[in-house]
Amino acid sequence: MEKIQFQCDYNEGCAPQILQRLSETNLEQNIGYGEDPHCEHARELIRKACEASEADVHFLVGGTQANATIISSILRPYQGVIAATTGHIAIHETGAIEHGGHKVLAQPATNGKIQAEQIKQCLQNHYSEDGPEHAVQPAMVYISYPTEYGTLYSKQELKDIHNVCLQHHIPLFIDGARLGYGLASKESDITLPELAKLADVFYVGGTKQGALFGEAVVITNPALKKDFRYFIKQGGGMLAKGRLLGIQYEELMQNDLYLTLARHANEQAERIQKALLQKGYKMAVPSPTNQQFFVLPNDDLKRLEEKYVLSVWDRVDTDHTIVRFCTSWATKKENVDKLIDTINRL
Amino acid sequence: MEKIQFQCDYNEGCAPQILQRLSETNLEQNIGYGEDPHCEHARELIRKACEASEADVHFLVGGTQANATIISSILRPYQGVIAATTGHIAIHETGAIEHGGHKVLAQPATNGKIQAEQIKQCLQNHYSEDGPEHAVQPAMVYISYPTEYGTLYSKQELKDIHNVCLQHHIPLFIDGARLGYGLASKESDITLPELAKLADVFYVGGTKQGALFGEAVVITNPALKKDFRYFIKQGGGMLAKGRLLGIQYEELMQNDLYLTLARHANEQAERIQKALLQKGYKMAVPSPTNQQFFVLPNDDLKRLEEKYVLSVWDRVDTDHTIVRFCTSWATKKENVDKLIDTINRL
Amino acid sequence: MEKIQFQCDYNEGCAPQILQRLSETNLEQNIGYGEDPHCEHARELIRKACEASEADVHFLVGGTQANATIISSILRPYQGVIAATTGHIAIHETGAIEHGGHKVLAQPATNGKIQAEQIKQCLQNHYSEDGPEHAVQPAMVYISYPTEYGTLYSKQELKDIHNVCLQHHIPLFIDGARLGYGLASKESDITLPELAKLADVFYVGGTKQGALFGEAVVITNPALKKDFRYFIKQGGGMLAKGRLLGIQYEELMQNDLYLTLARHANEQAERIQKALLQKGYKMAVPSPTNQQFFVLPNDDLKRLEEKYVLSVWDRVDTDHTIVRFCTSWATKKENVDKLIDTINRL
Amino acid sequence: MEKIQFQCDYNEGCAPQILQRLSETNLEQNIGYGEDPHCEHARELIRKACEASEADVHFLVGGTQANATIISSILRPYQGVIAATTGHIAIHETGAIEHGGHKVLAQPATNGKIQAEQIKQCLQNHYSEDGPEHAVQPAMVYISYPTEYGTLYSKQELKDIHNVCLQHHIPLFIDGARLGYGLASKESDITLPELAKLADVFYVGGTKQGALFGEAVVITNPALKKDFRYFIKQGGGMLAKGRLLGIQYEELMQNDLYLTLARHANEQAERIQKALLQKGYKMAVPSPTNQQFFVLPNDDLKRLEEKYVLSVWDRVDTDHTIVRFCTSWATKKENVDKLIDTINRL
Repeated sequence: MEKIQFQCDYNEGCAPQILQRLSETNLEQNIGYGEDPHCEHARELIRKACEASEADVHFLVGGTQANATIISSILRPYQGVIAATTGHIAIHETGAIEHGGHKVLAQPATNGKIQAEQIKQCLQNHYSEDGPEHAVQPAMVYISYPTEYGTLYSKQELKDIHNVCLQHHIPLFIDGARLGYGLASKESDITLPELAKLADVFYVGGTKQGALFGEAVVITNPALKKDFRYFIKQGGGMLAKGRLLGIQYEELMQNDLYLTLARHANEQAERIQKALLQKGYKMAVPSPTNQQFFVLPNDDLKRLEEKYVLSVWDRVDTDHTIVRFCTSWATKKENVDKLIDTINRL
Repeated sequence: MEKIQFQCDYNEGCAPQILQRLSETNLEQNIGYGEDPHCEHARELIRKACEASEADVHFLVGGTQANATIISSILRPYQGVIAATTGHIAIHETGAIEHGGHKVLAQPATNGKIQAEQIKQCLQNHYSEDGPEHAVQPAMVYISYPTEYGTLYSKQELKDIHNVCLQHHIPLFIDGARLGYGLASKESDITLPELAKLADVFYVGGTKQGALFGEAVVITNPALKKDFRYFIKQGGGMLAKGRLLGIQYEELMQNDLYLTLARHANEQAERIQKALLQKGYKMAVPSPTNQQFFVLPNDDLKRLEEKYVLSVWDRVDTDHTIVRFCTSWATKKENVDKLIDTINRL
Repeated sequence: MEKIQFQCDYNEGCAPQILQRLSETNLEQNIGYGEDPHCEHARELIRKACEASEADVHFLVGGTQANATIISSILRPYQGVIAATTGHIAIHETGAIEHGGHKVLAQPATNGKIQAEQIKQCLQNHYSEDGPEHAVQPAMVYISYPTEYGTLYSKQELKDIHNVCLQHHIPLFIDGARLGYGLASKESDITLPELAKLADVFYVGGTKQGALFGEAVVITNPALKKDFRYFIKQGGGMLAKGRLLGIQYEELMQNDLYLTLARHANEQAERIQKALLQKGYKMAVPSPTNQQFFVLPNDDLKRLEEKYVLSVWDRVDTDHTIVRFCTSWATKKENVDKLIDTINRL
Repeated sequence: MEKIQFQCDYNEGCAPQILQRLSETNLEQNIGYGEDPHCEHARELIRKACEASEADVHFLVGGTQANATIISSILRPYQGVIAATTGHIAIHETGAIEHGGHKVLAQPATNGKIQAEQIKQCLQNHYSEDGPEHAVQPAMVYISYPTEYGTLYSKQELKDIHNVCLQHHIPLFIDGARLGYGLASKESDITLPELAKLADVFYVGGTKQGALFGEAVVITNPALKKDFRYFIKQGGGMLAKGRLLGIQYEELMQNDLYLTLARHANEQAERIQKALLQKGYKMAVPSPTNQQFFVLPNDDLKRLEEKYVLSVWDRVDTDHTIVRFCTSWATKKENVDKLIDTINRL
């Protein structure tokens, strides 16, 4: 019997609406590299959804590529990016940022988040030194919404970070690989237009949110727009058949599909969370989105792994492991039923 | 009336078989990053087609990405890659190779090709200098099959280049973005297994050959295999839903689909070539594949552009332009009929 | 009245013997780029001092340059260097290592040192992960002898680190910007030949040890020797008048000058240490070399700064500061007398 | 008998005045990294000599380092630098510019020079393309004064280049590694202040002009000044004992020493030129500065090489070679007498 996968949010293909539309448009002739009408339309839909009529929107294929391209477009060679130690760019991208020549100035994270005060300290420490030119200059902030641990910044936390950035004239970049799961969370107190106003650049993730692939980069700060397409091309991120990205985002951005898919994933994650809490397991991190991190005794983990594929996140001690349960737009209710049933029998 | 596009070989989506298969497998649960059964199967099919049972096969999304990743994986920081001045890496990738720290040692090309003797000279010049360490060390060769001008190296030319590389212990990398159009050409005198033996690394292009996207990198030289996945990931080329690449190459490599699609494109290109020659136009480059480069009077070009989208390649003089006519797996016979008709009326 | 400087170990020019010799040889005609007889002779003297007759020796101008060049010559693009969080490459080189494309994998340091067990853990964590290619691969170790805090690794600690490196097939690089102060310390239990055997590559610092400038890189591991001059040239470190480096190291390596100068600095540092301890001040770090780090009340610091230039290292709290007192080969005994006198009167 | 060297302009140490001054100041205590009074004074002298009171002046150690640092400070990652195919950055720096991520957009040179019209064409070609983002964006111009072949741009040529740069909003960088030999040439029609007005950034070379080492970078364009010290430090070019550079430039910039030394070299070069011309040898390039390039029969070259060290520049055919005769501030009249005598006897 095949195991059911709760391993990640990219185990399946894509929302059926997208495949359908790809089929319908397959023989259309379109210009390449993102300059076709589908991309143009998708850009317009995203600007509207963000209430950012002047924003530039670019489509990239994946998250590591989007992060590296955006950061490369902002920093000068001697500058670095402030991020959480648990940030995706700090640990899970094989040094893509360093490959581009930049240091990730990693700050200790709590539940995947860093706070305005830490950022302020980092900046003040740099400039208060004699000879600041002997150290990497902190010049932008990277955070993820939701974080790599599924947690959310409150609107106030984002405003505080935004303000520190403003005072120090550095941009705020929000990694939105799972943006929908965040915005659709019951605990989110922020809307997409509000987030678009607080960030200088961010992306509306597709890969983990129902598309085959794709990340829609939104640049709201005019100072960051110049020549961005050169960066995309140089970084190997300019898809020849750009239409594929345009068509996918046309679908995602219509009929509330983006948030509908995310809401479904969050609901299934919440069901799993409840079952695990009722059974007395401890949350490793309190996450209100589609990723759930729990501390499990290794024996229980082993029994779960007979039927399910899960993500082993970290070892706690010789007997306990932090395990990630991940749902997605594609997670089937009946598979969650089965998982809960198994949990209850542990 | 919409114009018919002969502009490039990525104007349409993909071969219907591929879309069909993507739909059928859409809700399968698969592990990410190219380690799923579809990728494994596609790798096996490619190894067989290449008669290279020990080769490593990796799937990347696009050509610039594939070129940058492969070259980065081979060269040390002080080394450069020998290429034609007209090579894709030399002019059409926004300096992606330089971004990775390497100089493209561009050699004058004839009809898009460089020859073994030029490569030999370049290597000898470097090492005969006092203090060779003051110049970039030539350390690999990049050629395209077919070239960016649609032309083909003969088997003997490839052997000669291969032998120079062998003598100087540097690898030969063949950019196969349009590999199928080359192999399927009536003028090709080489097979895929033969080409696989002469190259140390090459790729079987998908984007321009009927896939939505994708390039299958084949590493036959064992010395070049180590840690290649790190390079893919760092370069932003590791697709989360790797299955998409696996599924596409499963289809392309079955039932002779890859070459069948290419043959069709070549046939349509040949029809256009004949019509243009009969009308007395001059070939800019004698191409036996899907790209045709002709010198057209600007007036004639203007009249063609009323109904067709073509690629303007270069200006010859104030009155003449080099124009590219490009066909693909998706080019409709009836559209070529129309184009020929228009040519005949010029 | 001019203040006396105990700020760093590069406040003065160079040992008089060196200037004398530069004058004597000034009009000699020599070939450039380090291939002259002085460099050759100096290399021979260094090999002898290290009892490493097969070692390659290269002369570079400064420490940041030497670190960046060496690390660049060893790592592949996806690899990183393990170092202490307080290591020079981690914080004081404006991201020179990242500029070269590599992540510094910083490990928590105690008194400026990291231990074999930490290195082992870092390596094991990397390889035990699913998909290690998603993180930077640790591929070399960087330590400083003495450390940036003036402390010394014991021979046993170095052997342990060496053994971990050996087991994991990664090289050990020792930054010896202040090597002499370490070897000449009363608490050192290691000799230069012993250190040369434990390191795969290291340098014999000149800039901070009595030369005008210069660092002599010693490569003992044959696998690291290839094409090193290309790296020097590319990194802008190949001095046209290489003779200047050769002549300086000829002098330093003769008549025990290198260690004699260092011993003098250590003695003066020890005198300052004793005076501060007797007065009841607390060492921030127990250093047996030419740098002394003490916690001073801000008021006392202010009084000292009326007459002396010191280095403010770190703030402890609102009332206390960590201050560095630094001596060198050039420190005058009578100036230390004066400083001690002032300390006693605080 | 030792051979007399006419091989390059860095065969000897430095002007005696410099060594003298280094000795006198040797035990002064100075702050490091170029912030000492000698550097400050030298900066002031250079600003005066350039009549550029607002210019920023920075001291670097060598030419490759200066070129790489300046270019890195100006270009964004997707931009390249226009230069002559014979430019130092294009061929003699082991790809230092590419290591920094940038393409050298090499233009065919005549006698080492490129012209305004070529630069204009290069810029127009780039922007006239569909999708300019597929190619490296030309964003600065690099020329050398004198060129690598000893030739000089006329004031008008420089003005024309300056104007093209101005129109396209890109900076002009003049490599002045041998600036003095150019300015002191009888054929020069430009002064240092005039050159300083035409360039956005340039350097006053020391290494090849009588200093032990050193290049004084002058930034006249305010837009290029920001954070330049970060670039120096990151590139490994920030000399700890910056005083050494300050002291050397204090001497060079006083009492007309810089141009006096250069004039001497040019005079000796002219004597050699005359002797070779009288003997009927052909100039390879008509140079009015300290480097003379002549076509010699290989037999004659062999005979000269019995007594002199010369630079073999290029092979013309199987029987002829282009040879460089190079003089410097240090070239002894009596050695030139001997060389001329030998030439006359050939």
